[in-house]
Amino acid sequence: MIELEQKILNEGEILPGGILKLGSFLNQQVDTDFMTLMAKEGAKLYEGCGITKVLTVEASGISLAFAVAQQLHVPMLFAKKYGASNITGDLYKASVYSFTHKQTFDIVVSKKYLTSEDNVLICDDFLAKGNALNGLIHIVEQSGARLEGALIAVEKSFQGGGDLLREEGVRVESLAIIESMDDEVIEFRHG
Amino acid sequence: MIELEQKILNEGEILPGGILKLGSFLNQQVDTDFMTLMAKEGAKLYEGCGITKVLTVEASGISLAFAVAQQLHVPMLFAKKYGASNITGDLYKASVYSFTHKQTFDIVVSKKYLTSEDNVLICDDFLAKGNALNGLIHIVEQSGARLEGALIAVEKSFQGGGDLLREEGVRVESLAIIESMDDEVIEFRHG
Repeated sequence: MIELEQKILNEGEILPGGILKLGSFLNQQVDTDFMTLMAKEGAKLYEGCGITKVLTVEASGISLAFAVAQQLHVPMLFAKKYGASNITGDLYKASVYSFTHKQTFDIVVSKKYLTSEDNVLICDDFLAKGNALNGLIHIVEQSGARLEGALIAVEKSFQGGGDLLREEGVRVESLAIIESMDDEVIEFRHG
Repeated sequence: MIELEQKILNEGEILPGGILKLGSFLNQQVDTDFMTLMAKEGAKLYEGCGITKVLTVEASGISLAFAVAQQLHVPMLFAKKYGASNITGDLYKASVYSFTHKQTFDIVVSKKYLTSEDNVLICDDFLAKGNALNGLIHIVEQSGARLEGALIAVEKSFQGGGDLLREEGVRVESLAIIESMDDEVIEFRHG
């Protein structure tokens, strides 16, 4: 999505360690008009797939997941970080290692909101090594739901997570794919 | 908002200690069509007020804040829980005591996303004693921005936070106000 690439080039901040900050429009401050545009583009990719639920993990994935679910007129569901939440009852649970925070945390979803009847689209703002995405996939597997695919705003393909999942047969669509960020120069993958 | 009251009666779960769970449509699973309806109703209340930014705190306030900001065509900004975030740089910070988790945590917003030029609408899913709302107000004060008011999905007025803020002159609009939940019977305040 060319408008997203342009926005990354204009507003992104590159930090050491392959970190790209897009807090001005994607995941702290959210440009709602632009997010709606991204969601329309993303929803189009999964139109006609019979998605029944859009799943993400708190907190920075919620805006995109909400906007995509809004386009598809289905519920959005977000996994909570266990311990930080007051979620109770029967839960699906998965462990996620965060490179940003250098620790493992559990994410949970209440069993009553995801069942074997569901056809799930997973959404997230970033895809790097794929830890969060793998955790969400593990939750979908536990529920017996069908995983239709994933929709990511920004994939950093040089960190490998997206291609590994594609090799495993998971449909992963990313609105922008960054192939390299060496010397603070951002190169996108096309086609 | 009569549709919200109806949905609370139909789907809400009352737990001991004045806790009301609305996870089926409001803050774990989110009914996106209904959230959009709530956001339209809420945005109408602040139409023409010159809102430049909608502010909330992660994670459960994000859906409503996003949907309201979308209606007003302004950015949505969410405060992060400090420690759980990789936010860096100059920050506004406030302490919030959570009755749900029985602990105090800091919330932060990057200074670059909120300035004295802004006219802020605060959004949240719940208002009980007003701790989160007071923390967000404290952040708005630090920024020098103008606080236009607050928009809440569900206020539990028997816990007092909303009326205290109204007495202090803060505009607080709630789409549903629960006056009491004694013996598992929900009574709404009207007018």
